[in-house]
Amino acid sequence: MKLKEIAEFLSLEYNGEDIEITALNSLLRANFTELTYCDGEKNAKDIPNTGAAAILVTKEYENLVPKDTKVLITQNPHLSFAFLSKLFAKPLFEQVKEKKQNIAKSAKIMPNVYIGNNVDIGENVVIMAGAFIGDNVSIGDESVIHPNVVIYNDSKIGKKCHLLANCVIGSDGFGYAHNKNGEHYKIYHNGNVILEDFVEIGACTTIDRAVFDSTIIKAGTKVDNLVQIGHNCDIGQNCIIVAQTGISGSSQLGRNVVMGGQSATSGHLKIGDFSTIAARGGVSKSLEGGRVYGGFPIMLQKDWLKLQAKIAIKFKE
Amino acid sequence: MKLKEIAEFLSLEYNGEDIEITALNSLLRANFTELTYCDGEKNAKDIPNTGAAAILVTKEYENLVPKDTKVLITQNPHLSFAFLSKLFAKPLFEQVKEKKQNIAKSAKIMPNVYIGNNVDIGENVVIMAGAFIGDNVSIGDESVIHPNVVIYNDSKIGKKCHLLANCVIGSDGFGYAHNKNGEHYKIYHNGNVILEDFVEIGACTTIDRAVFDSTIIKAGTKVDNLVQIGHNCDIGQNCIIVAQTGISGSSQLGRNVVMGGQSATSGHLKIGDFSTIAARGGVSKSLEGGRVYGGFPIMLQKDWLKLQAKIAIKFKE
Amino acid sequence: MKLKEIAEFLSLEYNGEDIEITALNSLLRANFTELTYCDGEKNAKDIPNTGAAAILVTKEYENLVPKDTKVLITQNPHLSFAFLSKLFAKPLFEQVKEKKQNIAKSAKIMPNVYIGNNVDIGENVVIMAGAFIGDNVSIGDESVIHPNVVIYNDSKIGKKCHLLANCVIGSDGFGYAHNKNGEHYKIYHNGNVILEDFVEIGACTTIDRAVFDSTIIKAGTKVDNLVQIGHNCDIGQNCIIVAQTGISGSSQLGRNVVMGGQSATSGHLKIGDFSTIAARGGVSKSLEGGRVYGGFPIMLQKDWLKLQAKIAIKFKE
Repeated sequence: MKLKEIAEFLSLEYNGEDIEITALNSLLRANFTELTYCDGEKNAKDIPNTGAAAILVTKEYENLVPKDTKVLITQNPHLSFAFLSKLFAKPLFEQVKEKKQNIAKSAKIMPNVYIGNNVDIGENVVIMAGAFIGDNVSIGDESVIHPNVVIYNDSKIGKKCHLLANCVIGSDGFGYAHNKNGEHYKIYHNGNVILEDFVEIGACTTIDRAVFDSTIIKAGTKVDNLVQIGHNCDIGQNCIIVAQTGISGSSQLGRNVVMGGQSATSGHLKIGDFSTIAARGGVSKSLEGGRVYGGFPIMLQKDWLKLQAKIAIKFKE
Repeated sequence: MKLKEIAEFLSLEYNGEDIEITALNSLLRANFTELTYCDGEKNAKDIPNTGAAAILVTKEYENLVPKDTKVLITQNPHLSFAFLSKLFAKPLFEQVKEKKQNIAKSAKIMPNVYIGNNVDIGENVVIMAGAFIGDNVSIGDESVIHPNVVIYNDSKIGKKCHLLANCVIGSDGFGYAHNKNGEHYKIYHNGNVILEDFVEIGACTTIDRAVFDSTIIKAGTKVDNLVQIGHNCDIGQNCIIVAQTGISGSSQLGRNVVMGGQSATSGHLKIGDFSTIAARGGVSKSLEGGRVYGGFPIMLQKDWLKLQAKIAIKFKE
Repeated sequence: MKLKEIAEFLSLEYNGEDIEITALNSLLRANFTELTYCDGEKNAKDIPNTGAAAILVTKEYENLVPKDTKVLITQNPHLSFAFLSKLFAKPLFEQVKEKKQNIAKSAKIMPNVYIGNNVDIGENVVIMAGAFIGDNVSIGDESVIHPNVVIYNDSKIGKKCHLLANCVIGSDGFGYAHNKNGEHYKIYHNGNVILEDFVEIGACTTIDRAVFDSTIIKAGTKVDNLVQIGHNCDIGQNCIIVAQTGISGSSQLGRNVVMGGQSATSGHLKIGDFSTIAARGGVSKSLEGGRVYGGFPIMLQKDWLKLQAKIAIKFKE
């Protein structure tokens, strides 16, 4: 899509050279054919380092934009970006005359399964009744997709994975831009979800696709039922994530992290390798690895246990 | 159904004038063809104001009943009502020779979709594979129903809504009447769910239908994954409800209320416009608008933060 | 399967008498044709009482094994058992030329339903669109299976049950054995789920199958939406389990226990008859019956309320 068309669509002024924009991307990842945005003070420091072809930015930060990056001035870059995300959104499913499907002969597909276009299904894969396999999905050898599982388009599933009934892989993340009237505009998520090998996803668990790039669950990680994993999370190898845990967007877990039942993280934080978060622990800041944490606000689990004991004694009649 | 038949079905005595009862309804909403009940002291004050054709009531409150309302005396009005709710329940699906379906030509319906009788589907609606659209459902223009979504009968979906994979709209609320032996009897929910325009519902989120009337989600509200919204809730415009939140029955949220992840409300309370409930906040009483709350029991978020800091200092070794 | 084949599969030494092993089972339930294991100090005391045909055990506890039980020495009995569980796992679905199905004529089966082999469906059962009924499932008279429900193989559903949309009955429990490198190996769960009569299961609720034997929900118990019930739980009669509650594996609830919204239990504990756990209560130890508990760590609810009040006063400015 041409940059001038984009400007027109957003009712923004643009008189510079017209160029082709192929995709949207984040400040630091956008390349010379992609458009990015800066949504405020927090990210303004990264503007000089962007390699984007063009940027949506407020007047205030215009002077930070590198000279090779075209500028679209807007009062609300995040909102302009949300509007654009719809234009760049892939269709939820492609309607083609004849689907390309590369399905191993050894794969077993039960009835009432929907399989989209441009799908790769490996050896001995089992896809149980009612499952939905979107366009451009690949499923590695020996993986089992249980009944009524939904795998959205562009998801990549490794080998020997188990996706239990009614889990959802690759639904849109919960991201909106807001206008002055407090109305919310959907950001279409054009990234995907990657599950590496030996991953298990529990029943009715939901894993959101990334805005750009990928939400990733690394090899050997096991996720229990009714867990929420937000967009752009990066979950390390061999993690154990117990039922009803919620992991907010852009969280990074190292390897062999254990999240106890009903625990949670806020977004944009890191949990180090070999950490354990006890059941109900609420992680609101980054944590170094190798220790056991608990409570909300989060602390060392041993401190939380002591604290609770002291409180109980202190306030006993 | 005749009132004398109802009395007979419930093994209650009734020698008054026989009348036709068309539906069940609450004390203050029941009209002159509907039957209501009073389930105890809390609601007894409303008995004199009922406009119901008939009422299930204990002997104790008989004297409060207006003279135009027929009286069925029962020891456990709630239980009698539960029994009756089954009689008045609509079928889960109608079996008709030829379904009436008003589906716009521009709508796209994928395979393995079930669409019931008397359904209206607007322009450019997309219904993805495996979705269930019950009887008497309407879906407004441009809305997208994702794979394996279940929309129960009588639900009304507005325009430009997004219902993500495996969410459930209009399942029976969690309401039971109890007998002396501690056995629970299902109350069939004969109300519905209304989603206004621009509503988004996350994957594996559940929204229960009302006992009577409607559970309503107003225009522009966005609901994340794995959220529970109970029967008869009234969620205002442009609310943001983050993943794994639970909103108990008959709660009322004003406009632009934000509920953080894993937050919750008890039932029958009001949260004012432009309130924010921080992640994990547990709302156990009505709250005035425009402020930020947190903790459990709920308090101002700034007080909760101070409290946690003081506790940490006080009990530090 | 022969014991010598098992030893060979696990690369363990075994020179004793060869015998046929028919199944895996727990230390105290395994019979004279079954193989069991001891996963450490906690269970070692039960070794002398096993009636198993054979046992996987560390060298350390070999001397506790009864003389009629054959011994396979292994450094990690739990891991060896996990490997074996795959060998003994039933197929997720049987592929037979002609399915045996005993479906009452009065039952109503909607479109897009999958029904496996050796299934019994009682009088007036309703199975709604998109449901999955695995092999060897039985469903008692008058039960209603709502849209897109998944009932895994071997589940037993009683009479007059309601299984609401998108709930999952009998998915594998969240159990793994671990090696020295922190890798997790799936334990295939060969038990099942039993729902007795008059049980109601909410939308998007998940109930895991047992490792051995059964996860059981007794008659009259009502479970709300988005609840997780772990493997091998035993939930008593007429319990009420409110939305988003999590019950960890092998928990036992007595009769008429109430679990409030977002409450939880750790595993392997007992809650006595007629207990109530308030909303958000976190049960980390066994509790005697007939009382109301709350808070986390769990205490009497009245103590929790007092404690919160005192804390609020104490730390008020």
